[in-house]
Amino acid sequence: MSASYAQDKQDLMRRLRRIEGQIRGVQRMIEEDRYCVDILIQLAAVRAAIDKVGLALIEDHTRGCVRDAVINNRGDEAIDELMDVLAQFLK
Amino acid sequence: MSASYAQDKQDLMRRLRRIEGQIRGVQRMIEEDRYCVDILIQLAAVRAAIDKVGLALIEDHTRGCVRDAVINNRGDEAIDELMDVLAQFLK
Amino acid sequence: MSASYAQDKQDLMRRLRRIEGQIRGVQRMIEEDRYCVDILIQLAAVRAAIDKVGLALIEDHTRGCVRDAVINNRGDEAIDELMDVLAQFLK
Amino acid sequence: MSASYAQDKQDLMRRLRRIEGQIRGVQRMIEEDRYCVDILIQLAAVRAAIDKVGLALIEDHTRGCVRDAVINNRGDEAIDELMDVLAQFLK
Repeated sequence: MSASYAQDKQDLMRRLRRIEGQIRGVQRMIEEDRYCVDILIQLAAVRAAIDKVGLALIEDHTRGCVRDAVINNRGDEAIDELMDVLAQFLK
Repeated sequence: MSASYAQDKQDLMRRLRRIEGQIRGVQRMIEEDRYCVDILIQLAAVRAAIDKVGLALIEDHTRGCVRDAVINNRGDEAIDELMDVLAQFLK
Repeated sequence: MSASYAQDKQDLMRRLRRIEGQIRGVQRMIEEDRYCVDILIQLAAVRAAIDKVGLALIEDHTRGCVRDAVINNRGDEAIDELMDVLAQFLK
Repeated sequence: MSASYAQDKQDLMRRLRRIEGQIRGVQRMIEEDRYCVDILIQLAAVRAAIDKVGLALIEDHTRGCVRDAVINNRGDEAIDELMDVLAQFLK
């Protein structure tokens, strides 16, 4: 069985590699004693990029696993699990 | 002149390297078609770690640059800039 | 047809009346020139309470409308709509 | 001594009364069994409005109390307190 995000795999990987590059960029800025506010602006951008990956995965998961579970009468547990994950992202 | 976060530099670098490792861990999970919810839990942890680095930098910035600016009668601009950055983190 | 949150209606109303009371409490604090930090702590509590009501509604909506839509082959639109709402809460 | 937000008092009160009205609007929507997604959109708007009031208060507090504390050599405690409050808003 393939993951719910199978179709978006390349897109997710591309975004995560970019986020990894941004994190390394932030490290470089700190090593070079760059101005704190410039670093914070970069960090806020990384955070927004992570939220977008999170939303994309939540969407794939809902269209895939949750939908399948509902159709196969296992919707309750799947939705419990989805809510736990949403609560963590909303914290 | 040293950056406001000079004293925390090693700690910040250590945390950012760990975040970089977590991002690579998420990439690996996607390559291995791991379960979406497990990936989302990891992503939420990365997000929380980034917020902590952000807060640490905001604190250093306030104790350093903003305080110096206030003492030297340039507080207004420094606080404007701080508020812009906070607004981005609260989005 | 009843709303997806029909069973939680009393609980949601009770929480929203408490939030309304908290907001009036914040107004009173401002009128009485109370200390900013005490007001901010109250505001952060209101924000957390609103997020909880939001999560409860998202859960009811997913268990109700979204599940029904999936079963009746209208899952795509229902999930599109759910994602739009999540994106607003994650901002 | 007046509060740091003395100058913004009318503006803050006006915004908080509007938020109170929005919360009552959400209660009405629930009583009328309105569609969950429409209620969630309203709730997200309330949350954004509360964040704006929070940012305005944080700004007034920083320009007032924190600045005064820095000038009077009590900056450390004031900044500790500010960071605690920011951490609650970033949660």
